[in-house]
Amino acid sequence: MGDRITVEEHAEHVAALLAPLRDRGAAETVPLLDARGRTTADAIRSAIDLPPFRNSQMDGFAVRAAEVAAAPVALPIVGEVAAAPGEPPALEPGTATRIMTGAPIPPGADAVVPVEDTTVDGDSVTIRRAREVGEYVREAGSDLAAGAELLGAGVLLESRQLAALAASGLTEVAVLSRVRVAVVSTGSELVAPGQPLGAGEIPDSNGIALQAAVAAAGAVVVSAARVRDDAEELRARFDAAIDAGAELMLTSGGVSMGDHEVVRDLLEPLGAWVGAVAMQPGGPQATATYRGLPVICFPGNPVSSQLSFALFVAPVLREIAGLPVARREERAVAASVTSIVGRRQYLRGRRMPDGAVEVVGGPGSHLVAALATADVLVIVPEAVAALAAGDLVEVLEL
Amino acid sequence: MGDRITVEEHAEHVAALLAPLRDRGAAETVPLLDARGRTTADAIRSAIDLPPFRNSQMDGFAVRAAEVAAAPVALPIVGEVAAAPGEPPALEPGTATRIMTGAPIPPGADAVVPVEDTTVDGDSVTIRRAREVGEYVREAGSDLAAGAELLGAGVLLESRQLAALAASGLTEVAVLSRVRVAVVSTGSELVAPGQPLGAGEIPDSNGIALQAAVAAAGAVVVSAARVRDDAEELRARFDAAIDAGAELMLTSGGVSMGDHEVVRDLLEPLGAWVGAVAMQPGGPQATATYRGLPVICFPGNPVSSQLSFALFVAPVLREIAGLPVARREERAVAASVTSIVGRRQYLRGRRMPDGAVEVVGGPGSHLVAALATADVLVIVPEAVAALAAGDLVEVLEL
Repeated sequence: MGDRITVEEHAEHVAALLAPLRDRGAAETVPLLDARGRTTADAIRSAIDLPPFRNSQMDGFAVRAAEVAAAPVALPIVGEVAAAPGEPPALEPGTATRIMTGAPIPPGADAVVPVEDTTVDGDSVTIRRAREVGEYVREAGSDLAAGAELLGAGVLLESRQLAALAASGLTEVAVLSRVRVAVVSTGSELVAPGQPLGAGEIPDSNGIALQAAVAAAGAVVVSAARVRDDAEELRARFDAAIDAGAELMLTSGGVSMGDHEVVRDLLEPLGAWVGAVAMQPGGPQATATYRGLPVICFPGNPVSSQLSFALFVAPVLREIAGLPVARREERAVAASVTSIVGRRQYLRGRRMPDGAVEVVGGPGSHLVAALATADVLVIVPEAVAALAAGDLVEVLEL
Repeated sequence: MGDRITVEEHAEHVAALLAPLRDRGAAETVPLLDARGRTTADAIRSAIDLPPFRNSQMDGFAVRAAEVAAAPVALPIVGEVAAAPGEPPALEPGTATRIMTGAPIPPGADAVVPVEDTTVDGDSVTIRRAREVGEYVREAGSDLAAGAELLGAGVLLESRQLAALAASGLTEVAVLSRVRVAVVSTGSELVAPGQPLGAGEIPDSNGIALQAAVAAAGAVVVSAARVRDDAEELRARFDAAIDAGAELMLTSGGVSMGDHEVVRDLLEPLGAWVGAVAMQPGGPQATATYRGLPVICFPGNPVSSQLSFALFVAPVLREIAGLPVARREERAVAASVTSIVGRRQYLRGRRMPDGAVEVVGGPGSHLVAALATADVLVIVPEAVAALAAGDLVEVLEL
């Protein structure tokens, strides 16, 4: 067993172990509609002007500004341009052309008079208000010139970014590859959810929790398994995960002080750090490298396992995926709280309508149902033994 | 054309048109790992106690509390219980049983002494600290009793909720069906992104934008199309969308004051409301019912279309899907801004490191590339003609 280290020290160890994943820069090209929630691998320049051609900002009349400077001015209406394919004919001097929003400006025209500022009488239109050159005209490239950067590298793609890519004529985009993650739940007491429970058996919830949390952090699960407390069985799963292309292994269970600690038994001889972090829940933790694969090991208690992922691994995976980090804020605790000096306590909390945060469930690391009703972690610092109702405390959004 | 209505009036019209979708309660059962981001259709009770059996919270020794009340007390070690299948033998009076975290408490034992408070000497253990009855014992059902509510109806499922469902032995969950949405972009000038552009043609970005935004709002696109300004072509698309099971139709384009307004031409004779909302961008809007299908019509300008979805439809779809609403907050504007009195202006903005919000691009509704660099909408109220640098303004997170 190593020494008891701080939360920050462990977070640094994990981040250092995962740094090669952050720096690998692997990219893949996907269709735009599959790219939502992904992150651009490179800066993207528009191949075309946006908009591609000079067009009208309004429904109205295309004119020569100089000819309507002395408005009101009556002009014969010659032609009509819709937002439709084709080149419009040139605007004859001394005339106005009816034009629709988005339609190309006829050569010769240099302003658009909105329909609201005109009066039509048969084949003639009275322009009631003078317009400057360029008014209500969208110049080609006025949103973005061809060759200019449309999106930078590392940009999270949501609908508005995908729209801009489509507007520039793209159908696919190079995005960072998702980190490929393997998940192993360890513990002879575990059975697949849905299987009948014998004496001493519990359904494996860590497997589902970690798989769902990995996906939420922008990574992808390539291998998921459940093993008994048998180091050779665990070794086989690690090897299989490597064969499946895993870049990161996450385990739950088998790292505490008991005599049957399968993860410790496999990894400690290979140079793993196995120790304790000054936090509750989640004290026992380990980090290792197995055949080049970074391995992050969480305790088996379900709350410990889920919190450890959220605190140590999710921030790194989210950064790699370009996702925003979880929000931290200060809130008042709704009722008094006691804590253990020397450990950072992560209580489960729920934000209340009055803005305070209520602690749900106790500190026990088995309270998986209570965790499901929480929306924040309430962080009680190491030096604090008690908080009174109304005291401010840092909370981390789940 | 109807009158000019307020943003709130239009939002109410849209919400009323979509109310049947909110109240339809359609559910489907999906495996836990497919349920992330979905919403529970019904309250869910646990069929089993959580935890299912009385177990140890620590690695240590199971004892009778009364026998260690006068600690230090030395007891012979008899047996060992791991977290593994099977019933442990009863604790013989006057002995201690070695026990692991999560292992079942032997019948007769009523407390666990953590290993840190013990000294082992061969087959004997000295308990150095007295323990109360129940200390470090997790009672069956202490997290949640069998039959109690595990999750309510309408709960968004994230990893911690899925973990709780798995812990109670479930493998699947009934979730609200996603609203099935059809999207049609109208405009003869539109071509599929990636196709060569002829004169007067632009790539259709609204189709991609709305499809991605629908998915982000927790609904599902069942039909997506692009039509020229031809009312019969549009009618055929509406009919096809109904055949595809659409519950909601979204259109872009064809609702303004021009002479070629395909959406207006099709829907106004059927009793649609086609009018203007006192906002910029996004003034021209329409709502209709086509063969029982609610239809929400946005303007064709890409910024107008995306903002209209975000303001009027996304909140309703997100509520149906149980997703959190977009955050609104007050921020200072980084530079002065002018606006049009009588319209609510939605400028595109970016939050800066100092907390202020910077307006990006101009007010033009064609600035699709500028929108892609924004992360908030800056809302300038109808009565405001100008804001000075540092003035507070409401911003809506995109």
